[in-house]
Amino acid sequence: MATLRDVAQQAGVSIATASRVVSGLDNVRSETRERVERAMRELLYVPPGRRPATGVIGLLVPDLENPIFPALAQAIEKHATEAGFASILCSTTAAAFREVDYVHMLLDRHVDGMIFISCEMTNMSGDHEHYARLVDEGAQIVFVNGALNTLSVPSVGVDERSAGEVATQHLLELGHRRIGYVAGPDYYLPTQQKAAGRRAALRAAALEDGDMTAHGEFSVAGGRNALRNLLVSDRPPTGVICSSDLMAIGVLQEAAAQGLRVPDDLSVVGFDGIDATRWTKPALTTVEQPIEEIAETAVGALQSLIEDPAKPLPDFSFRPQLAVRESTAHPHAASRR
Amino acid sequence: MATLRDVAQQAGVSIATASRVVSGLDNVRSETRERVERAMRELLYVPPGRRPATGVIGLLVPDLENPIFPALAQAIEKHATEAGFASILCSTTAAAFREVDYVHMLLDRHVDGMIFISCEMTNMSGDHEHYARLVDEGAQIVFVNGALNTLSVPSVGVDERSAGEVATQHLLELGHRRIGYVAGPDYYLPTQQKAAGRRAALRAAALEDGDMTAHGEFSVAGGRNALRNLLVSDRPPTGVICSSDLMAIGVLQEAAAQGLRVPDDLSVVGFDGIDATRWTKPALTTVEQPIEEIAETAVGALQSLIEDPAKPLPDFSFRPQLAVRESTAHPHAASRR
Repeated sequence: MATLRDVAQQAGVSIATASRVVSGLDNVRSETRERVERAMRELLYVPPGRRPATGVIGLLVPDLENPIFPALAQAIEKHATEAGFASILCSTTAAAFREVDYVHMLLDRHVDGMIFISCEMTNMSGDHEHYARLVDEGAQIVFVNGALNTLSVPSVGVDERSAGEVATQHLLELGHRRIGYVAGPDYYLPTQQKAAGRRAALRAAALEDGDMTAHGEFSVAGGRNALRNLLVSDRPPTGVICSSDLMAIGVLQEAAAQGLRVPDDLSVVGFDGIDATRWTKPALTTVEQPIEEIAETAVGALQSLIEDPAKPLPDFSFRPQLAVRESTAHPHAASRR
Repeated sequence: MATLRDVAQQAGVSIATASRVVSGLDNVRSETRERVERAMRELLYVPPGRRPATGVIGLLVPDLENPIFPALAQAIEKHATEAGFASILCSTTAAAFREVDYVHMLLDRHVDGMIFISCEMTNMSGDHEHYARLVDEGAQIVFVNGALNTLSVPSVGVDERSAGEVATQHLLELGHRRIGYVAGPDYYLPTQQKAAGRRAALRAAALEDGDMTAHGEFSVAGGRNALRNLLVSDRPPTGVICSSDLMAIGVLQEAAAQGLRVPDDLSVVGFDGIDATRWTKPALTTVEQPIEEIAETAVGALQSLIEDPAKPLPDFSFRPQLAVRESTAHPHAASRR
């Protein structure tokens, strides 16, 4: 194991000077301090019994399978790094550990703050007690793409209601009148918020909902299943909006399996803006989250909390952006329906 | 902040009993210990001044943008969880922190071990000193998809040479004679290992290499650039193997942009087996890493090291698996070349 002597030697300073840096004392020139800190890192020197250095935040995501979570995590890590924080990422739906276990582990390891991305707070029948406890204990936390009215935790995210509205309006403008919703599980708040946006857009066009919502898991298979359920109707939709791009990719696959051409027979709008929407054929029209802006704002909010916990912060709600690609078009009069 | 008294009360035990559990003493019934530990987790109780609990491993990946890294991390996390470890994931190519900084941070936070996935050890001009230092200090580490001959660190991964060979043989069997290589940067060992596999397959078929290798970044854009460079030749390849699926997706895009039909005018073989290979059109023929087996073996190796550092471990090399989809076919005699 590297010793303080090794650090001093590598940095070319006295042991007393190295010790002052390690102890966090002020009377060291910044150039000297940097040399000692570099030597500590390079020698992997960990001062005995010291409370770990600050400068680490925890990011929590439900899983790594939906590409939107690695994408958000990567963007947040980039901004956190620029702000001087290293990030550690925990995916919380692994078999035996629960989100609260990860929170405990992160607290145990003295992180400066945590950013929860689409975690339990979005699940209306989920366990929210650990959030209340974190707030009570003065921990610094920020929610991304989720919020709890009952807690004063700043939230940063995309306006899900607007996303549902924008997607539906796009299909209305193309001339669709039967617009379905390939929806995630109903107990997730974003699922319901997009449903509300869709209903508002339909109502503004004086159209009925028409029982055209089917739920599935937030996955390719979930999208396939939901579309299958919508297509058994006598009057199936000519276009669908989806809770996520993964579900929309499932819709593309199920449509192909049933011999439906996209967009000729069925228009499809995704949500999230993952890279893969550019790789499918047809490329997916989707409602994109402003990932960069969300990431930058979330890190800024957490940094503000860490520096001044008393300073009040607003909720930050970003307008999503429609990206029109190849999966949407006018409904064909000659289609099979 | 939750106190020991709160923990005892929630667990329904005396403070003395709770204290024995927190201090790690043996004379507590296992059922009681579990109750106290559950209460500690649920109350987010962190014992003052205690060295953090064990049971956490660090996973290091270069980035989260290439879907193979979240996929491997997710699989490793699943197996780590089953083995009783929580995982924290660090992506190491963020702007201001280097891999060695993350290693230092993880040591500082007392992880039990680390798994490095395609990290600096695969970069032949990279910095490897921190690995040697970790070994010297008795830290438990495992390499995934990379190895260093100079260090006795167990490695688990796919046989990259075999991957290059299998992909090339597949194109040879389809009748291709001009087989190019859309390669990652040359200073990465896997790039060279796949090149060696390709050369071996060509040699066995009595074919020349024919200057048909072009390098690019490990990304969609890198694949596009590399294919563009291959296509300026008088006698361009009729099929290409690629260093990664992302690069192969770039090849599909560049081929479409240049009016080449895949597989009619150009056959394409990817590598990795990311989900998106099923979503492209044509779906990508690719050489798949056995992600599950690699993950399970890597966690098993790390667990063995943690439990008995003296027990010698082999290197684990898995045969990759060809997955034939739609992007490869016989070369057309009537093609433009």
